[in-house]
Amino acid sequence: MDTLLTTSIPRSVWYGWGDPAQHRPLPPAAWEHLRDRLGAEPLPEPLRHAKIEDVELPDSRLPEAAHAALCEVVGEEHVAVDRASRIEHAGGKAYPDLYRLFHGDAAHAPDAVVLPGNAQEVAALLQVCAQHRVAVVPFGGGTSVVGGVEPLRGQCEAVINIDLRRLDQMLACDPISRVATFQPGMRGPDIERALQAHDLTLGHYPQSHQEATLGGYVATRSAGQASTGYGRPDERLLGARVATPTGEIVLSSRSPASAAGPRLLDVVAGSEGTLGIITEATLSVSPMPTNKRHAAWLFGSFAAGSAALRAMVQDLDRGTIADVCRLSDVEETQINLSLAGRGGQALLRYARLRGLDSPCVLILVFEGRDEALLKSREKACAKVIKAAGGVHAPAQIAKGWEKGRFSGPYLRDALMTHRVLADTLETATTWTNIASLHQRVSDAIRTALQSEGDRAAVMCHISHVYGAGASLYFTFSAPEGSDALARWQAVKDAAGKAIIDGGGTITHHHAVGADLRPWLSAEIGEGGARMLRALKDEFDPTGILNPGKTIPSATPDTP
Amino acid sequence: MDTLLTTSIPRSVWYGWGDPAQHRPLPPAAWEHLRDRLGAEPLPEPLRHAKIEDVELPDSRLPEAAHAALCEVVGEEHVAVDRASRIEHAGGKAYPDLYRLFHGDAAHAPDAVVLPGNAQEVAALLQVCAQHRVAVVPFGGGTSVVGGVEPLRGQCEAVINIDLRRLDQMLACDPISRVATFQPGMRGPDIERALQAHDLTLGHYPQSHQEATLGGYVATRSAGQASTGYGRPDERLLGARVATPTGEIVLSSRSPASAAGPRLLDVVAGSEGTLGIITEATLSVSPMPTNKRHAAWLFGSFAAGSAALRAMVQDLDRGTIADVCRLSDVEETQINLSLAGRGGQALLRYARLRGLDSPCVLILVFEGRDEALLKSREKACAKVIKAAGGVHAPAQIAKGWEKGRFSGPYLRDALMTHRVLADTLETATTWTNIASLHQRVSDAIRTALQSEGDRAAVMCHISHVYGAGASLYFTFSAPEGSDALARWQAVKDAAGKAIIDGGGTITHHHAVGADLRPWLSAEIGEGGARMLRALKDEFDPTGILNPGKTIPSATPDTP
Repeated sequence: MDTLLTTSIPRSVWYGWGDPAQHRPLPPAAWEHLRDRLGAEPLPEPLRHAKIEDVELPDSRLPEAAHAALCEVVGEEHVAVDRASRIEHAGGKAYPDLYRLFHGDAAHAPDAVVLPGNAQEVAALLQVCAQHRVAVVPFGGGTSVVGGVEPLRGQCEAVINIDLRRLDQMLACDPISRVATFQPGMRGPDIERALQAHDLTLGHYPQSHQEATLGGYVATRSAGQASTGYGRPDERLLGARVATPTGEIVLSSRSPASAAGPRLLDVVAGSEGTLGIITEATLSVSPMPTNKRHAAWLFGSFAAGSAALRAMVQDLDRGTIADVCRLSDVEETQINLSLAGRGGQALLRYARLRGLDSPCVLILVFEGRDEALLKSREKACAKVIKAAGGVHAPAQIAKGWEKGRFSGPYLRDALMTHRVLADTLETATTWTNIASLHQRVSDAIRTALQSEGDRAAVMCHISHVYGAGASLYFTFSAPEGSDALARWQAVKDAAGKAIIDGGGTITHHHAVGADLRPWLSAEIGEGGARMLRALKDEFDPTGILNPGKTIPSATPDTP
Repeated sequence: MDTLLTTSIPRSVWYGWGDPAQHRPLPPAAWEHLRDRLGAEPLPEPLRHAKIEDVELPDSRLPEAAHAALCEVVGEEHVAVDRASRIEHAGGKAYPDLYRLFHGDAAHAPDAVVLPGNAQEVAALLQVCAQHRVAVVPFGGGTSVVGGVEPLRGQCEAVINIDLRRLDQMLACDPISRVATFQPGMRGPDIERALQAHDLTLGHYPQSHQEATLGGYVATRSAGQASTGYGRPDERLLGARVATPTGEIVLSSRSPASAAGPRLLDVVAGSEGTLGIITEATLSVSPMPTNKRHAAWLFGSFAAGSAALRAMVQDLDRGTIADVCRLSDVEETQINLSLAGRGGQALLRYARLRGLDSPCVLILVFEGRDEALLKSREKACAKVIKAAGGVHAPAQIAKGWEKGRFSGPYLRDALMTHRVLADTLETATTWTNIASLHQRVSDAIRTALQSEGDRAAVMCHISHVYGAGASLYFTFSAPEGSDALARWQAVKDAAGKAIIDGGGTITHHHAVGADLRPWLSAEIGEGGARMLRALKDEFDPTGILNPGKTIPSATPDTP
């Protein structure tokens, strides 16, 4: 079916996204567009990332006694204080992380990187760290785009990363109940390879699939490209073991559903390493689809496309809607089509002929095992789409998206070599509010990017569709300006305010991390913040676990 | 479609279930069966419930000052200390609750019943109670069958019920996003009536639908008869306001999904009044179905029927399985058919002709708005069922079940008038474990009921089906024996042990309450118990909220 799901790549380079072999220089069509839209010109010579030997890296502040105690737990060979290890773990993959490292700044690097080999070692490490007041950042694929793995010290003496790459096994798979238990350090393609031996799939394919890990999927309450069909991992979570500095949390996977008090698994999901480190997770898995159908449609406006998505998810019977639904707004459609070269231009002409001067593209992917049912789902969706004014477009557009499903982030790296800033952020809201929030957040990002008179591109798509509403995923780019990081921060501040004031959630699938933490209080209120702090105080009284992330501080931050 | 959904009945009588007008004497066929199976004989004169004036009721222990403070909040007319009010609120609807009251024992009655008129009054009542050390039992429909509304004092001076019947409005309904906000005291038929004005339904129809309330649905993490299709209310919960003795929890319904830290709504759902009182809840709702199809099938064994259900939920595409699926085991099928009189006997003969000597009945109800799709779902299910050895039976069986969908509990009352004990309990587990758990729990209940040489009936059905497993719902009956309550307790102890040792969840949809609390630690471990206690200490430091329920005590209980 989809070989990309099991295609592993090497661990990400430290100065950018993923595997350099996947990098492509920007095509000439992209430059036309960037000139046009941003006034950006390619540099005659693209910038190169700093050499690792030139990277500025402070000395490790890990006290000798703590170092010795960590070695005692995992063996000296699994406590890394070397330059390369510390630089590799200096951040996640948000724009500022990449920008700093690209330009040779690893001031944020952890004091050491520790690689436990099993759950017992994870637990023992946490006790050592609590004793020595060493902050701990759990590290899976390291793909956080919200500062979730930034090595912050909090009130501690030092900070280490606990890198979970050695906990990379599927521990159990029950094909009768379609339930599997994984260690947290297992990466996307490894998960899929292990499950495909049983004709199963996790059904969770975020853009970070090739690097990200199962522990991160659960800890960040993430969603993947096909979560509209397969459900989100937090919904599929049936059991978990979590190591904390004060004892283990074991939520056994006795049943697919229960009324035995609150669903505590939903405290584990989304805890982002602030309450403990997930050492095992049991999830329900799905049959590997054998058939797939792709479709693409054009709409005259984002509102018309949204209305079609809403009709599909609300008015068709359950399970009819496509597993993957992606509706691009006018600007994203224009940019994607201009990047697609001649094929894109032809499609634009076709759209104009059909009276759609500023088209919005919708792509759909249906997955399943029964070809007849797939066809009938596609037909039912087509009927709804046509009624909403949709115009048929070549299915090749959806196939093209799928082929590049994991490659988007490489573009950000390429732009950075020409001093163009690009990043993404996301929210979700109800159908009633979606048009208003789309406008509000787009405007806020655009205004923030244009602070020095530069031009900006702000694109958006809907990628996750629910009965009550949908996600909005924004991609923005502009020239770096005089201070790239300040410009990026201005965008995040403006977008955060627009989202909260506009009634959206501060994050639909990237999690909170350090970057969005100042906004969480506004979303969950003082009551919600008290819940999180009470749990934090119970399990991590010394405050070593991922300080500065997720949980709002007791004294209000000013975003 | 289904008029029963909006059929209101009066508030339940204090000595039994629901509305006496719905009571029916046991039919002669039932007595044949009871003689046969339990050796039970009808009493020449059925017992009658105690007269309310004869009920033993201790004096109210509510201190004068507390009484005055409560009156200050809600007005004197909403603080009831009269005999009838206290007796009506003396318990839920578990067998021991009914048995005690039927026989004139209201020793467990609360010291007062307070009826707030809005969320602010609820909050103010909790502050008064914390100040005066008065325990609080939130009371909606009062249909708990696990001691969830038993007025336990804990360490407090007195105990009151906060009856939420005056908070009975739908506060908002957004038909675009299909989201509605309710007050907690709204009963099932009132919810449906309010939503039907918008062509919507909550999709949650527990057997207690006609009495139970929205706050209870959420607080107990309950499931309804059609939850296989519509999803469980906790999954549909988008927002909540909760009053606690130390401030309000407000989880706003910004979006259908989020990654903004842990899903704290799942701490509210299932909290059973131990952390606060839900004063508002926002849920996603569904389009009211316009079409329905019923089907019934026979299997040669419970295992064959289970295999068919598993194939339907796992192998058919999402949304294909029936919205209601109920598979009775051999004993439940026999009993249901013997209660059905001549029609039942004819069906048994037909089953034997088809080689099914001990048949198991499966009923299915498909609901939707597109008749063609309903037919194709039914057809796809039929194909799977036939492949699993299912034999077609008259759809009338499913229609008959639906007609009596809310009347089951009345039978328990009728049996009590002839000194026959009857009650239910439920669990859920994975498909891999379902046959083994079914056997283990059935055996445990049977053995416990037969303690004095009496015979017993132990029936079971699957009513909720998930990709990873299913629920098991047991109904048991036997002569009361020398001590009815001791016999009931022996069954609950034996079943609890069998469920926990056998790998099931201690409750699938009845919640924990006081009755199952001793087992919760075994399910969620010390880590889970610490989570709950940390939250309890934060929001209810004086321990006034529903003491003795749900949350395991710090010193282990011995079940």
